[in-house]
Amino acid sequence: MNRVKPNYSRPLDFKQGRVELSHGSGGRAMAQLIAELFTAGFDNAYLAQGNDGALLPQITGRLVMSCDGHVVSPLFFAGGDIGCLSVHGTINDVAMMGARPLYLAASFILEEGFPLADLKRIVTSMANAARIAGVPIVAGDTKVVEQGKGDGVFITTTGVGVAREDITLSGDLAQPGDTILLSGTIGDHGMAVLSQRENLTFDAPIVSDTAALHGLVAAMLDSGVKLRVLRDPTRGGLATTLNEIAKQSGVGMMLHESAIAVNQPVEAACEFLGLDPLYVANEGKLVAICAPEDAGRLLEVMLAHPLAREAAIIGEVTEDAHGFVQMTTKLGGRRIVDWLAGSSCRGCVEATSKIQLGMNGHVCVAVGAGLTKFHYHARIGGQCAVLVEDQGIDVHLFEHGQFADHFRHAQQYVLQRRHIGRSHVAECAQHLGDAGILD
Amino acid sequence: MNRVKPNYSRPLDFKQGRVELSHGSGGRAMAQLIAELFTAGFDNAYLAQGNDGALLPQITGRLVMSCDGHVVSPLFFAGGDIGCLSVHGTINDVAMMGARPLYLAASFILEEGFPLADLKRIVTSMANAARIAGVPIVAGDTKVVEQGKGDGVFITTTGVGVAREDITLSGDLAQPGDTILLSGTIGDHGMAVLSQRENLTFDAPIVSDTAALHGLVAAMLDSGVKLRVLRDPTRGGLATTLNEIAKQSGVGMMLHESAIAVNQPVEAACEFLGLDPLYVANEGKLVAICAPEDAGRLLEVMLAHPLAREAAIIGEVTEDAHGFVQMTTKLGGRRIVDWLAGSSCRGCVEATSKIQLGMNGHVCVAVGAGLTKFHYHARIGGQCAVLVEDQGIDVHLFEHGQFADHFRHAQQYVLQRRHIGRSHVAECAQHLGDAGILD
Repeated sequence: MNRVKPNYSRPLDFKQGRVELSHGSGGRAMAQLIAELFTAGFDNAYLAQGNDGALLPQITGRLVMSCDGHVVSPLFFAGGDIGCLSVHGTINDVAMMGARPLYLAASFILEEGFPLADLKRIVTSMANAARIAGVPIVAGDTKVVEQGKGDGVFITTTGVGVAREDITLSGDLAQPGDTILLSGTIGDHGMAVLSQRENLTFDAPIVSDTAALHGLVAAMLDSGVKLRVLRDPTRGGLATTLNEIAKQSGVGMMLHESAIAVNQPVEAACEFLGLDPLYVANEGKLVAICAPEDAGRLLEVMLAHPLAREAAIIGEVTEDAHGFVQMTTKLGGRRIVDWLAGSSCRGCVEATSKIQLGMNGHVCVAVGAGLTKFHYHARIGGQCAVLVEDQGIDVHLFEHGQFADHFRHAQQYVLQRRHIGRSHVAECAQHLGDAGILD
Repeated sequence: MNRVKPNYSRPLDFKQGRVELSHGSGGRAMAQLIAELFTAGFDNAYLAQGNDGALLPQITGRLVMSCDGHVVSPLFFAGGDIGCLSVHGTINDVAMMGARPLYLAASFILEEGFPLADLKRIVTSMANAARIAGVPIVAGDTKVVEQGKGDGVFITTTGVGVAREDITLSGDLAQPGDTILLSGTIGDHGMAVLSQRENLTFDAPIVSDTAALHGLVAAMLDSGVKLRVLRDPTRGGLATTLNEIAKQSGVGMMLHESAIAVNQPVEAACEFLGLDPLYVANEGKLVAICAPEDAGRLLEVMLAHPLAREAAIIGEVTEDAHGFVQMTTKLGGRRIVDWLAGSSCRGCVEATSKIQLGMNGHVCVAVGAGLTKFHYHARIGGQCAVLVEDQGIDVHLFEHGQFADHFRHAQQYVLQRRHIGRSHVAECAQHLGDAGILD
């Protein structure tokens, strides 16, 4: 329909060029960015309509809608980048509702000065992910904020799909006696991102598990098994996801630590940083809850799918008015698997009772009663603070990025994950305050 | 279904509290923020499902999907705020496709330290706008970025709707001979935001026109008039919107300046800042293009609606392979109404040929051949630069916010909007470079 040829003064410079405020102003520069980057990259007839919205084919059914903002740092990591992540994440959220994902919309908030080369790499990754998944990006928006008012690029994706006629999945449908399945190893995504951010290297690489799970979900639904709940354990990790479901359904859960697979390099990195993989984000895994009589069949179906080759039954739903998620440990003990409680250093020192990884990533933390050492790691204003108590308490300050270096040469600081009492927490806060880290 | 009572240690402090990184970490703090603020505020059964996506009722029809990121500064302005704006904007984009907006999803990217009181005010405004419009916010997401990596709050809204059976509207359907209608005055939203940002006050207040237009669109479609194009002239203003349509349809346009209404305070503020209201954003106006024989009937329908009381026929679609939008001026002349070409100072000085307002707001600009004075206003690193040429060229630097004060006391700087040659632009750039403003 475009009988008038576009008449741009010069093409975008995807080698040296940078995002400018004009690319978000609604004018010619924005039209050029959209045409040469987004419309060309995402390449589908709906986006090419060039209107304020996409007019899509006729659909019939119960609509499912989900959205997710992506603010990951670093933008590129082993196994993926913010682009494919933003596609997979939203496809997965739609799929977890028992729906077939149909279309995506993507909104970009770009920081002035962001390299166009990086943006193109991200858009290409999104386009590939969407094409492979068969879920086109049909609508979009671009805004540019001044330098210092953003962080490179934020991407919000929204997905729509149609739910299967005969199936309703929801976090409030778990029943005591139900079986809990997990599609594979945990912690891969979060540790891939964190190790990149902290500049950690390990002998075996840690690779994000980012993947679109709608094919796996379709196979599971096709099997005819009565699924009650599906959810992908992203931010907050498996522990938080299961706590959410327990709360929604008003049930408890009993997990078996030995059944929960963790890749060895992930386990090592978590140990090194004092993190618990149960709280680390995943981007290509799902939790399924089904009636116990269906569990064997469901596990078979999952194991037959390339994205769930390490699927396992990891526990049972129990009757528990308090909604506690518990776990039998490898050593034969039992512990509460609590929610992730805060991710900021302030929050942690006040109230933490678990080792944690904030997905914003700048705080990890120690704790629990009976600890002989504890360790505090926070990045505030570009500095890392590490607090180690052994006989006394020491505070160490590191420039960002040197935290891991230090630990590499000081293995004695690798910490046990145990509980400490509130008095220790208060003491810790006091010392951090004295060091000017906490206010 | 929530048989377990939420057991938060303390409620959120909506008076003194601030957004913390933990509010985006996926854990208990985030669950609390979502429950006490978003789910409570938006208050609908779909969001209350508490799953990763919303399961919505059965629909049948052609789906329409649109999304829009909102990064407005300041967040609160006369007539509205980023909250209601983000609801209206996306509802309007869906409505412009000839669809009935049904559901919204909202993604928040919050900056650590943002006051919870402001966030609550914004969420309340969104909730009210959605309720009044009858379009619930059914899905959402919250992320928190570190202080200095965001700008208070960014909101991306995505809307879905169902297109009317018998109607297809698109920017590529305008035909020579068609009539162009506008639903009211232009420039109100952009100047309301800009005058707040620049701390300008005028005798008569300038109020944003932000409004949901789906009711107006429904009335227009119900009238049975054959509409070809509907679009809301937001970023880039009326001029840019019409240029987009002209390009998509491969047609020209002839507008009549005298038919385009501008509120007097908006006109004065534009004059004062050297802006052209044709390029200033609107958030509650629409452009309609229809067959000439239907224009009278359509105008009647529009005038009868509260949101289009000042609707008018503003021009005609013409045959023009170059896609030029032209305008007969009030003085009987004729001029080209070009695209907004860039909004950054660098882009402007290089290539500007129109007076402009970047919606990111930090640049306005002069120009065109034959100018005797010209004026340059850019905010870079917190400084305002104003360049005025009369006999020679002067560069003035102002701290942010003092630009307008200066002009208030120096009326001789109020500038004519005329054309200058490229040599003047180069000279201007040279002087800005010497002053350390351009590199």
